Amino acid sequence: MPSYTAPTKDTQFLLQEVLKVTEQDIPGYEDLDAEFTAAVLEEAGKLAGAVLAPTNVVGDKQGCTLENGVVRTPEGFKAAYDELRAGGWCALDADPEYGGQGMPALLNLATGEYFSSANMAFQMYFGLTHGAISAIAAHGSDAQKATYLPQMIEGSWSGTMNLTEPHCGTDLGLIRTKAEPQTDGSYKITGQKIWISAGEHDMTDNIVHLVLAKIPGGPDGIKGISLFIVPKFLVDEDGALGERNALSCGGLEEKMGIHGNATCVMNYDGATGYLIGEMHKGMRAMFTMMNEARLLVGMQGYAQASVAYQNALGFAQDRLQGRDVTGAKNPDGAADPIIVHPDVRRNLLDQKSFVEGARAFALWGAELIDRSHRGGDAEAEALISLLTPVIKGFLTDKGFDATVLAQQTLGGSGFTQEWGLEQFVRDARIAMIYEGTNGIQSLDLVGRKLGLNGGKTIMGFFDMIKSFLKENEGNAAIKSDFLDPLKAASKDLQAAAMYFMAEGMKNPNNALSGSYDFMHLFGHVCLGYMWARQAIAAQAALDAGASDRDFYEAKLATGRYYMKRQLPATALHLARIQSGAEPVMTLEAANF
Amino acid sequence: MPSYTAPTKDTQFLLQEVLKVTEQDIPGYEDLDAEFTAAVLEEAGKLAGAVLAPTNVVGDKQGCTLENGVVRTPEGFKAAYDELRAGGWCALDADPEYGGQGMPALLNLATGEYFSSANMAFQMYFGLTHGAISAIAAHGSDAQKATYLPQMIEGSWSGTMNLTEPHCGTDLGLIRTKAEPQTDGSYKITGQKIWISAGEHDMTDNIVHLVLAKIPGGPDGIKGISLFIVPKFLVDEDGALGERNALSCGGLEEKMGIHGNATCVMNYDGATGYLIGEMHKGMRAMFTMMNEARLLVGMQGYAQASVAYQNALGFAQDRLQGRDVTGAKNPDGAADPIIVHPDVRRNLLDQKSFVEGARAFALWGAELIDRSHRGGDAEAEALISLLTPVIKGFLTDKGFDATVLAQQTLGGSGFTQEWGLEQFVRDARIAMIYEGTNGIQSLDLVGRKLGLNGGKTIMGFFDMIKSFLKENEGNAAIKSDFLDPLKAASKDLQAAAMYFMAEGMKNPNNALSGSYDFMHLFGHVCLGYMWARQAIAAQAALDAGASDRDFYEAKLATGRYYMKRQLPATALHLARIQSGAEPVMTLEAANF
Repeated sequence: MPSYTAPTKDTQFLLQEVLKVTEQDIPGYEDLDAEFTAAVLEEAGKLAGAVLAPTNVVGDKQGCTLENGVVRTPEGFKAAYDELRAGGWCALDADPEYGGQGMPALLNLATGEYFSSANMAFQMYFGLTHGAISAIAAHGSDAQKATYLPQMIEGSWSGTMNLTEPHCGTDLGLIRTKAEPQTDGSYKITGQKIWISAGEHDMTDNIVHLVLAKIPGGPDGIKGISLFIVPKFLVDEDGALGERNALSCGGLEEKMGIHGNATCVMNYDGATGYLIGEMHKGMRAMFTMMNEARLLVGMQGYAQASVAYQNALGFAQDRLQGRDVTGAKNPDGAADPIIVHPDVRRNLLDQKSFVEGARAFALWGAELIDRSHRGGDAEAEALISLLTPVIKGFLTDKGFDATVLAQQTLGGSGFTQEWGLEQFVRDARIAMIYEGTNGIQSLDLVGRKLGLNGGKTIMGFFDMIKSFLKENEGNAAIKSDFLDPLKAASKDLQAAAMYFMAEGMKNPNNALSGSYDFMHLFGHVCLGYMWARQAIAAQAALDAGASDRDFYEAKLATGRYYMKRQLPATALHLARIQSGAEPVMTLEAANF
Repeated sequence: MPSYTAPTKDTQFLLQEVLKVTEQDIPGYEDLDAEFTAAVLEEAGKLAGAVLAPTNVVGDKQGCTLENGVVRTPEGFKAAYDELRAGGWCALDADPEYGGQGMPALLNLATGEYFSSANMAFQMYFGLTHGAISAIAAHGSDAQKATYLPQMIEGSWSGTMNLTEPHCGTDLGLIRTKAEPQTDGSYKITGQKIWISAGEHDMTDNIVHLVLAKIPGGPDGIKGISLFIVPKFLVDEDGALGERNALSCGGLEEKMGIHGNATCVMNYDGATGYLIGEMHKGMRAMFTMMNEARLLVGMQGYAQASVAYQNALGFAQDRLQGRDVTGAKNPDGAADPIIVHPDVRRNLLDQKSFVEGARAFALWGAELIDRSHRGGDAEAEALISLLTPVIKGFLTDKGFDATVLAQQTLGGSGFTQEWGLEQFVRDARIAMIYEGTNGIQSLDLVGRKLGLNGGKTIMGFFDMIKSFLKENEGNAAIKSDFLDPLKAASKDLQAAAMYFMAEGMKNPNNALSGSYDFMHLFGHVCLGYMWARQAIAAQAALDAGASDRDFYEAKLATGRYYMKRQLPATALHLARIQSGAEPVMTLEAANF
């Protein structure tokens, strides 16, 4: 059975020493002093380890069941849910006007990681409600906000997102679910939605479905889509639960992982729905909350990698096999712990350097969201829009890979259910697919985000790296190990962007054929940047005579590993990108 | 539900046009004319598709059960087993003296791929028996051969390999299972073995366990290990089954995949065993059959990738989402099939170029085994020893990655059990672990195989590539697309080997820290070499006016993709290798 201890020390280091939150000019950040963030992280970590983690294996084994339209979650889920709800963890960053704690998105992400590591299938129930809250808060009328937000924020009601239909997922312009206007201003919603996470379950009194549908007579395709609130139980004027709406769970999906989360077929049979935001502007409403939702999915990638790494590390420190080739490290034992072997260390360091780099990257992303939402900073808004597909795509791809590496650390035990590593692999796999597949993320990045503000945003990113390098060029302790490789990697990224600009004009497939590699190239540069920032902070702490030298030395060693052994991947991605459309497009579809 | 059609045409191309089997000076190969191999491949393909493939999903869902010591395999396994057994497919390449078909290892591998694609968990029952047959054939006494081989080859008895114990897998020197000599020359075997694939099941009348154990008083560690035959039912002098031996299945492992194969805890409680080969030379006996066993595991890697690719391709050709950015390809439909999108093609071509390159590489490996075993060619023996860890490690790593890519092609459907892609991922995962983890393969490669014959074998490999490049340098059609990139990749491999020689002397960790990257670098060079050979054959067929131009054009396009977009990975692996031990070894074990 795997165990989980929240990495509060690392998060605290990132918040206080790397991001230096209290020095940031972002409303609300002035409260984030070290004592406060430490207390929040400790409390979340305790709940994650003691309350949630024990439900993870049972959730996987039991899964959810559907009987007579009722979905039951696994043993212990409801009790754990109530405990987290009571602590106000459901929507830490929600608006205090509706009962939220009003904390920055940064802390919601930081603590969300722990819950996700402890039980990803469970944390999704929160995550989806969070997305629905954001949509209603951003686009709902005052009456809608008053009706739905307090209960959703308090956690007694949950939320869902209904996009996919059997014949379309990515191409939402094809959806068929109909919304017929009624004389009272409401709509009758009819259609079938699939893969609805938390579509039906037994943990809350009501479920607020947000449903994409088409109002007859509207424009074709993506421009004719509207967004509706369709509650499981209608809500009376006094806020009490009224009659059951005409919607039901028609089936549960059997999946590779996240068995504790109910993935539902949802049937809407003339259900009562309420338009949210403008008619035919449903996609715009969806998009506004995507940055945050995709950031949270990116987080799931490294959250699974983090817990998998912890367990792989424990195994590597305990398991005795073979001897250190340079001399026994455990001469009194039958063999040395396998962590002495270079290839086991290589495996562990691939995991560790990813997890810590990814955590830093995502927290920086959350800071940008706060800077944009709380500070009204348009540049930060543009930058996080640019980075969002990278955070989602790169961190979930690499996060999954890291869980596979962790499984490998255990050898045969990694393949058994008993040790639990294989569950992390199966659970992590979905994050590469949902909230827009990673292929779609790469298209969003190259097709939409690179051209944002006429290319000013990506140029701004390059300028930021350049300024960072310049500001720190006098820091001899980190120059050759961190700044020089970051500079080289950033040049590869610029060369790739230049290639797209020059060749994508001639043939868009020259850009699209390299989109996935570009997303990974970009991800490496971001992790390289965050490792350089961590190295500067760690070196500063050491120079200042910090007592916990081991922690800071480990930071530097792990960062050096990333710069030496992971970052050089940028050259490979650039080579692939520069090979252009020809290798990808030549083969006729019929001859594959 | 996934489907499977054996890629007989591709195999036939490799055998007849790339390897040109009838032109090889290997005993038995003179019979392998096109008509004969086509007939064998067709028949195997038919059985794989029609008989085995339908048992794959049910095998995964039902798994094996243990009740009162009896293990039951999933529905349909026994019937399928009997059908394949009747066709003589259990041990196609076994010695005719004991009832085998006497075919080359090449055909066993070629057809084994189809069975593995159709149902990997099932094919393992054959695979393990095959390994046990090889061990008895190579090291057993004449009496032992006569007693066990005919029934094992005929398939009425199966075989197993018992190595791992709870406290040791890789480090077999630590095993505790005891073998106490009896006055009649037999031994009493006592101990527990774990992860014994096909350790107990209901498909054969007897199970012949090969068990590693220590005879008391022998040398410590790996040098004191002997190998024993321990049959489930003792065999009378007349060959009839006698009393039940004192061994039993103590439990089944719950695993991530290959649920149809019973992974057993085996308890030996003073069971009667018979020494096979020399006392204390058990490891040597194990090693002699490892090349073949590891080749077969490497095959499992691309076999799963092959069936996963087929199903991903079918989905990509059917699923309508979005439009070709250069103009609609299916204007009358609601959208274009997703195979029009560059990133979907990138994904599919990664899979296809791996599967076809891997198949070629493994078949060439089987040819080397035949050249060594049948032709007594010591150079071929050395070369396949060198290549074996590459075949096992690289093909199973990349094969698993390819199943993950195939799953991604399907988006959300790839995560559901209904479409079956996720099973291929879960099944493929084990091949990276068993028969020596891939980390161990890389140590075998760098620590043992590079120095084989004082380095002559690896130098011979480089000479072979050099001669190949020289012989074909006049082939203008393939020079720049195939030969030049192969030359560059081969240089990277040589540079890595040189680095190991120079720096490994100073500190062995400089070599061991790069072993995994070296295995992958080597794998890419081998696939690049096999793609160049395929390209030459395809170009020759086109030049000769072959009627099936689409097939040969597709070969060239797929090969070009590999050379342009996969082969450049060699530079990244070299960069990592040349970063040496420092990044890997600096961090103290306690500070991870």
